[in-house]
Amino acid sequence: MTSLAQGDIGAVVERDVEIGALELASGETLPDVVQRVTRYGCEPLPDGSNVVFVPHALSGSSRVLEWWDGIAGAGGLFDTAQWCVVGINVLGGCYGSTGPSSLAPDGRRWGPRFPVVTIADIVEAERGALLEIGIERFATVISGSLGGQQALQWARAHPDLVGQAIVVGTFDHLRAQGIAQNGVARDAIRLDPRFEGGWYEEPPIDGLRLARAIATLTYKSEDLFERRYGNRADRAGGDPSRSLDARFDVEGYLAHQGDVFVRRFDANSYITLTRAMDLFDLRGRERPAGRTRLTFVGIEGDQLYSPQFVWSCAARWAEAGWDSEYRHLESDHGHDGFLAHPQTLAAVLREGLETARPPGTLKGS
Amino acid sequence: MTSLAQGDIGAVVERDVEIGALELASGETLPDVVQRVTRYGCEPLPDGSNVVFVPHALSGSSRVLEWWDGIAGAGGLFDTAQWCVVGINVLGGCYGSTGPSSLAPDGRRWGPRFPVVTIADIVEAERGALLEIGIERFATVISGSLGGQQALQWARAHPDLVGQAIVVGTFDHLRAQGIAQNGVARDAIRLDPRFEGGWYEEPPIDGLRLARAIATLTYKSEDLFERRYGNRADRAGGDPSRSLDARFDVEGYLAHQGDVFVRRFDANSYITLTRAMDLFDLRGRERPAGRTRLTFVGIEGDQLYSPQFVWSCAARWAEAGWDSEYRHLESDHGHDGFLAHPQTLAAVLREGLETARPPGTLKGS
Repeated sequence: MTSLAQGDIGAVVERDVEIGALELASGETLPDVVQRVTRYGCEPLPDGSNVVFVPHALSGSSRVLEWWDGIAGAGGLFDTAQWCVVGINVLGGCYGSTGPSSLAPDGRRWGPRFPVVTIADIVEAERGALLEIGIERFATVISGSLGGQQALQWARAHPDLVGQAIVVGTFDHLRAQGIAQNGVARDAIRLDPRFEGGWYEEPPIDGLRLARAIATLTYKSEDLFERRYGNRADRAGGDPSRSLDARFDVEGYLAHQGDVFVRRFDANSYITLTRAMDLFDLRGRERPAGRTRLTFVGIEGDQLYSPQFVWSCAARWAEAGWDSEYRHLESDHGHDGFLAHPQTLAAVLREGLETARPPGTLKGS
Repeated sequence: MTSLAQGDIGAVVERDVEIGALELASGETLPDVVQRVTRYGCEPLPDGSNVVFVPHALSGSSRVLEWWDGIAGAGGLFDTAQWCVVGINVLGGCYGSTGPSSLAPDGRRWGPRFPVVTIADIVEAERGALLEIGIERFATVISGSLGGQQALQWARAHPDLVGQAIVVGTFDHLRAQGIAQNGVARDAIRLDPRFEGGWYEEPPIDGLRLARAIATLTYKSEDLFERRYGNRADRAGGDPSRSLDARFDVEGYLAHQGDVFVRRFDANSYITLTRAMDLFDLRGRERPAGRTRLTFVGIEGDQLYSPQFVWSCAARWAEAGWDSEYRHLESDHGHDGFLAHPQTLAAVLREGLETARPPGTLKGS
């Protein structure tokens, strides 16, 4: 157990939790599963009423405040003087939890042998880790995108353990358009000759960079791209009207996003986690509505998860008997808006959070 | 001059027209330019009043009826018993006109040395070819996407030579989102080790396949993808919930589109023509409004050129003094809708075409 820092976010504790073998939805068993857990703020109360669990999106980690700095602490959604905020690196990821870059029992990396995992598998691994650190139930699970899928899966699988799930910029299943976008990104990785079918020694950074650029096309709103970059030439130089090797400013932005990403992400994890997203589908699995209160948040200009369709998901779960409502997040950012505008999200969620079961106050309300 | 066929579309005549050297917008001069021209139906009248020019979109050719079978002939928009329908392969293309795969004066392929060309250059080459075959002016220019850019450029550059321009699923400039999408597609081609900086002997088909798949993501509406493919496994076999190498049906569709494309398209042409699209920008070049009548058509569900923004283009040109109007094409296809629904497009355009200057009748009206 490592204490990372003390500050206005309170104590930070990080720990690699061994949860043993995990039986996957596919029937396969994954041995020796480790989950990297980071905990901010208060000690968890025995009834979990002060615990907020923040699963991460595709490129995040257990260190919630590194990728969502508005979620906790001063000015954030949850005041760590009163809340215990927990993050866990997902199964299949590359930030401390078991994934393709971990060692398999034979002493080699799992690499492309790492099994297909689902959002349900990811959530069961998280549950095992939370139990190990003394958290059986919690007040709120909140996140967006791949993290929002986990939030909804928690509600579906464990409605008696979760007070409320706030599901941001996510559907209850991935639609064909999203699967297709993930698919071309995976193909970009595979096109890199260094990929070697997943058995790379040198990481396939050119393919991963392109995969990230493709994904980034949908992470911002079209209007934001237009306002920031328009059809101007790359600020780093070159004239695209004179040379095919020169580029536009928006291309430079995508390349920069790719460069940052390839220094910190594993290509096999990218393939594994996008497949988990693709497989997510909670439609038509009839179960009685659970007690978890659901809030679906759609984001204006979201090119990946249209707010119209988030709204229809909220309606479908309400029809199935859940306490489900829709909130709309105004944003000029599009999909990434929940990260960019924590104060706006706080205002949108204010009523819901004030009437939630857990004690404590909400910053910004 | 070759006569290709006789049938219910009337005579078809194809010819490679030499237009000599062409001075480009960049100031460079391209020598020995050839334009592949295909002409369907009637002989052109001296005043061009029975001539419809149909420039093509990215993957098309001068053979208009091969990529837009609803445009002419029985049941099509223009009855070739009364109209002369003309197509020309674009400068920089790979279907008969001068492009990167043509031989340069040194006897080698132009390859990556082929200069940056603009939509204005493409139109001036077309003008040269049309003059060579006796067409100085024409009644209508109609097309979508890259072809729509050409239609609008014709109106802007030669408003006295064009009766009306019908601009489908196109803006008057490419926005950052479109440039970014073209950019990642070009990067996919460059990622293929066979590309060799554009000096390939073996075509870089893996990169070109991925480029086409990326582009195809935006050619159909999200709803069409969902209805056709959903999150079903690939109909060709494999279970994506069991193997990372298996894929979903929509991924199989994209791969198929890519496979078809790589057999028939040149990678350097792809780079050259998408750059021409990127550079297209007719905003703010103040000139008196011309006499060409403009009809902008936005397509429901178009993920590449939103109908809302097509509408705002129509309004901007009207404000600048042009006879400019907006029509909306209902379609479940999205961007490709103008190709998929010629009858619907005919109905949308009916009034405009009936009141157009040229004689003749419109099929479907």
